[in-house]
Amino acid sequence: MNTSAPSALIGASALRVDGARLWQSLMDLAAIGATPKGGVCRLALTALDGQGRDLFVRWAREAGCSIRIDAIGNIFARRSGRDDRLPAIMTGSHIDTQPTGGKFDGNYGVLAGLEVVRSLNDAGVQTEAPIEVVVWTNEEGSRFVPVMMGSGVYVGAFTLEHALAQCDAQGISVGQALQDIHYAGPVVGTPDVGAYFEAHIEQGPVLETADCVIGVVQGALGQRWYDVVVQGMEAHAGPTPMALRRDALLAASELVLEVNRIALDRAPHARGTVGSLEVYPNSRNVIPGRVSMSVDLRAGDDAVLLDMDADLRRTCARMAQARGVTIDVQEVVYFPPQPFTPDLVEDIRSGAKVLGFSAMDVVSGAGHDAVYLARVAPTAMIFVPCADGISHNEIEDAKPEHLEAGCNVLLQAMLRSARVAP
Amino acid sequence: MNTSAPSALIGASALRVDGARLWQSLMDLAAIGATPKGGVCRLALTALDGQGRDLFVRWAREAGCSIRIDAIGNIFARRSGRDDRLPAIMTGSHIDTQPTGGKFDGNYGVLAGLEVVRSLNDAGVQTEAPIEVVVWTNEEGSRFVPVMMGSGVYVGAFTLEHALAQCDAQGISVGQALQDIHYAGPVVGTPDVGAYFEAHIEQGPVLETADCVIGVVQGALGQRWYDVVVQGMEAHAGPTPMALRRDALLAASELVLEVNRIALDRAPHARGTVGSLEVYPNSRNVIPGRVSMSVDLRAGDDAVLLDMDADLRRTCARMAQARGVTIDVQEVVYFPPQPFTPDLVEDIRSGAKVLGFSAMDVVSGAGHDAVYLARVAPTAMIFVPCADGISHNEIEDAKPEHLEAGCNVLLQAMLRSARVAP
Repeated sequence: MNTSAPSALIGASALRVDGARLWQSLMDLAAIGATPKGGVCRLALTALDGQGRDLFVRWAREAGCSIRIDAIGNIFARRSGRDDRLPAIMTGSHIDTQPTGGKFDGNYGVLAGLEVVRSLNDAGVQTEAPIEVVVWTNEEGSRFVPVMMGSGVYVGAFTLEHALAQCDAQGISVGQALQDIHYAGPVVGTPDVGAYFEAHIEQGPVLETADCVIGVVQGALGQRWYDVVVQGMEAHAGPTPMALRRDALLAASELVLEVNRIALDRAPHARGTVGSLEVYPNSRNVIPGRVSMSVDLRAGDDAVLLDMDADLRRTCARMAQARGVTIDVQEVVYFPPQPFTPDLVEDIRSGAKVLGFSAMDVVSGAGHDAVYLARVAPTAMIFVPCADGISHNEIEDAKPEHLEAGCNVLLQAMLRSARVAP
Repeated sequence: MNTSAPSALIGASALRVDGARLWQSLMDLAAIGATPKGGVCRLALTALDGQGRDLFVRWAREAGCSIRIDAIGNIFARRSGRDDRLPAIMTGSHIDTQPTGGKFDGNYGVLAGLEVVRSLNDAGVQTEAPIEVVVWTNEEGSRFVPVMMGSGVYVGAFTLEHALAQCDAQGISVGQALQDIHYAGPVVGTPDVGAYFEAHIEQGPVLETADCVIGVVQGALGQRWYDVVVQGMEAHAGPTPMALRRDALLAASELVLEVNRIALDRAPHARGTVGSLEVYPNSRNVIPGRVSMSVDLRAGDDAVLLDMDADLRRTCARMAQARGVTIDVQEVVYFPPQPFTPDLVEDIRSGAKVLGFSAMDVVSGAGHDAVYLARVAPTAMIFVPCADGISHNEIEDAKPEHLEAGCNVLLQAMLRSARVAP
């Protein structure tokens, strides 16, 4: 038995990460693809993404980890446990960004995991189970769809072949891009995960508005996305009396308000958004003949989401009749709600309490790699505030003390799952 | 005294145009710039417009008219009266078209005037006052703005120099384009018009819906056009709770409904239209941060139009506060309402009655050259139905018997103003 084990055991709950080191790593990684406005543009599987990956791999090796790359380019940095036959206790996120992305989205989850490893090394703590820090390929979906590609392939949400065949706007495939940056591994392994944790900036305003440091994420909202086309009759704005119009934009505008109402009727967690809307012919003095629009409905409960779907379809049918237009509703995306694992969620909540951080239960309105991982492993997420709730934007910002706090909560939760070796 | 005068005098009210000849002329002119879908593309001052003008000038000369071209390219085809010092009794319209225009918009008014001249010739009728058939330059405004350019210069709504300096998308000026097709005349004359009549397809559905042949146009609606910008805050559709949103499209949609309400509150002649609306960033899962939209308000009475303007501004202020957005309202176009001349309007009404055509009072929701002419001369317009109220479209259509009926009403009204020479 290692003679340092007793002191490490005693010190485990007192163990703290190095917040300054975490911050410096975030800034160093953000230098790769840095934009003039202070953000980061490092699209998935570009040369810049390759440089970012190389830096992470070098840091992980310097921290004593072994590196494994799978066939979709996911990077697994492994710190051995006392019993390496145990399923790994895993954490991670992604380091690809939006075209006008920030320094923290995804990168924080990966580098918080690395900081956990470094802190365990500093304290000479050996865990019973191995720990793995993962970089998932192409979470953002800006260059290649579908989004959350690496974690999606890993959990079997879609096939490796499907993912490798996707092409960007220049016709370059995922398979080709992986080879170009030397991150095409041999196979995709069968998931064998003891627990998965992901730390992430909230990307919304709830924590900041509540002046709270730790978001204890209960799960992710289910999503139903639609393409809706409203077809009326285009006509001259001047000669056509109000009563004889079949104005597609008038009907579409009413639908925007109804989508909002559908969500408000199911407060507090339901959401309804029309993000995209295009008008044809979009001419100042022509009554619009056609509108194409998106509808995005989200809820924490699948029955509620289905009820919102029915409400949407009823509303469209009623409005089509009232306005003399046709409304075509096509569902294009469905993600069921994904609750996280109660025991692990409780570990996050109690960890924050022990460490003295304010905490509140929140839901994830957005998709994250953790949402896929929850299909194959016990999973939980930790949110920390970001400035003004802004993300996917070069002005994305977060406070060092909040990032450090989230990382300490992550460390304690992972230690509880991985267990300190006796 | 001409020995045929008494018989012509007796026959004037029994005089009828040749509907088949009018239709054939419409079809012959429509062959220049004909599109595969049955419409016409003959943009102002292009080579095709030049060919169309040449055809009209040849026809007019064959009908015994003298031709005068002014400095903005308006063509005046003059049939002498017994007393050529009298102000001319004028009719006309335009022969330029929209890019996907039809055979009748504008062309009907010009060729109906030509058919009046031809019919007077056939019957050997001499009028007391001279008659002029006018082709106004660039009514459509598709290639060069402002719209109604030729008539606008003629009545002094803007200067000749301003109009000549306007350039198309390729940088070719109106002045250059006029020279290229040899329609740059020496000067713009001082208007001296005894009366101005314009026959036109309705470009709306009112006559067809009422199963009525002749629209007795009371005047043109006034117009106020606006550019409106709604500024909210873009944010992620997932992580942002409904209560914390500043959704620019939600506010803009409410405004679309309010613009509709503002017009309905002032039925039957008021109109309110949002024809153009653009969303930023227009991404499916991003709450819109900004919307740019047009607002087009029309009314027959200037006080009503001003009241609509005040209602719009009040509504925007109220909605900006309620939705946490800013709404900027800039007026970009103002045309005052333009009533036509009661005596001439009555001539149209009684003429339709004498000829046995169903007739109804209508307003012109759109602009026409007649709206400018009404600033300097007694003016009236005659509308005839077009299929489904559709215009500015290659499928624009009208019935030969309706076009003939409108032309007969025009003939009688012009004879009443020009007076048959004793």
